[in-house]
Amino acid sequence: MQTGPKLPKLYEGKAKILYATDDPEVVLTYFKDDATAFNAQKRGQILNKGVVNCAMSTHLFQLLEARGVATHWLDTTRDREMRVRCVQIVPLEVVVRNIAAGSLCKQTSIPLGQALTPPLVEFCYKNDDLGDPLLTTGRIYAMGLANEALVAQLRQQALTINQILSDFFQTCGITLVDFKLEFGHDSKGTLLLADEISPDTCRLWDRAESDPQRRVMDKDRFRQDLGDVETAYQRVLDRILAQLA
Amino acid sequence: MQTGPKLPKLYEGKAKILYATDDPEVVLTYFKDDATAFNAQKRGQILNKGVVNCAMSTHLFQLLEARGVATHWLDTTRDREMRVRCVQIVPLEVVVRNIAAGSLCKQTSIPLGQALTPPLVEFCYKNDDLGDPLLTTGRIYAMGLANEALVAQLRQQALTINQILSDFFQTCGITLVDFKLEFGHDSKGTLLLADEISPDTCRLWDRAESDPQRRVMDKDRFRQDLGDVETAYQRVLDRILAQLA
Repeated sequence: MQTGPKLPKLYEGKAKILYATDDPEVVLTYFKDDATAFNAQKRGQILNKGVVNCAMSTHLFQLLEARGVATHWLDTTRDREMRVRCVQIVPLEVVVRNIAAGSLCKQTSIPLGQALTPPLVEFCYKNDDLGDPLLTTGRIYAMGLANEALVAQLRQQALTINQILSDFFQTCGITLVDFKLEFGHDSKGTLLLADEISPDTCRLWDRAESDPQRRVMDKDRFRQDLGDVETAYQRVLDRILAQLA
Repeated sequence: MQTGPKLPKLYEGKAKILYATDDPEVVLTYFKDDATAFNAQKRGQILNKGVVNCAMSTHLFQLLEARGVATHWLDTTRDREMRVRCVQIVPLEVVVRNIAAGSLCKQTSIPLGQALTPPLVEFCYKNDDLGDPLLTTGRIYAMGLANEALVAQLRQQALTINQILSDFFQTCGITLVDFKLEFGHDSKGTLLLADEISPDTCRLWDRAESDPQRRVMDKDRFRQDLGDVETAYQRVLDRILAQLA
């Protein structure tokens, strides 16, 4: 059942709650089953999502750490609970796109499924009131959200992570279509990958399926009412576990 | 009165009509009084706008040509009619912003009136169906709308034009807040400034007024129902004419 830890709540987001711990450098992340889409205009629950996303993020953060990517992950203490390094979040959502889907297709004439070579790295302003709008680098600098060096670092990190995750998901029979990352700085000023990596934040297509609805293994099943949402999330985790076994 | 020329119509836009001439390299632009805003959701007429915008564009294109900027302008044959070089339009709206206003403020946390140093150069996809969406350079390349060399050339030209126009408008007691440009290639492949330069395409604030409504001398008077639209357009033209006299 979803019973959060008995700790001081720092922040409650749409899919996770952050709690303080005894160590000011450490935060406990609690993964909820709550699901939202279209900037929280659509709301619901995906049964057991918190457990699946916590487990999947754990394995993928460990994989990335093993390949030299610094992440906020410390350890996973319970089914839905992950201890992470406390970071100051950069207020940018970093989106990497290997294949055109979602808002990119709605906002441009690029058709769904078009391969993007090289991958597109995009930045959105992490701001629910404004609907997480797309930003140009000029807007990022004008808003003072990041300087040129940080934007270059985020872009490079995102591309490195994309390479590692794309290769890994391919071995799981899954195409990493696109995904959203968040980064933060720890108390020493080191940039760490933060947030989560899950079917909430990635578009994942089953490589064995060509049907545009059957192939979807991510939150688009919830967004588009495709059904079998819980099954899809669990299948992604099962394939990751089988690959890592 | 608004009576278009007796020539074959090539294209009718929201504010102008393009006609073919005897010379395939030359197009006649007819300036209408029709005004639209918010992607044509708001429609109306601004009396005499076609005459004012044709005259203003004429003077500003001539000013730019004198400063070495290649434009499509050839001559102005009648009140509302300008002959221009036929170009293949680059499907990008190039927006230069010196001061934050309009969609920039709606889409970001940048407040109205904030100075942008250096000026922001932004690109939107010239596509009414999609509502002329903001594009990142990555999206421009992915869509094949322009390559890196052309984007760099458009940005440089836009900044050069901004410097010339900002300086000129300042001598007219007007602040050039932001403006939209369109460019095209002629039959030889030369990049020319096209479209128009007018209170339809520029935000212009009266430097003698500090009141945020009274200072507005551009299409925002129409967009925001501030009244005295015709007067404002005419006053901009009068100041330009006085300065050039």
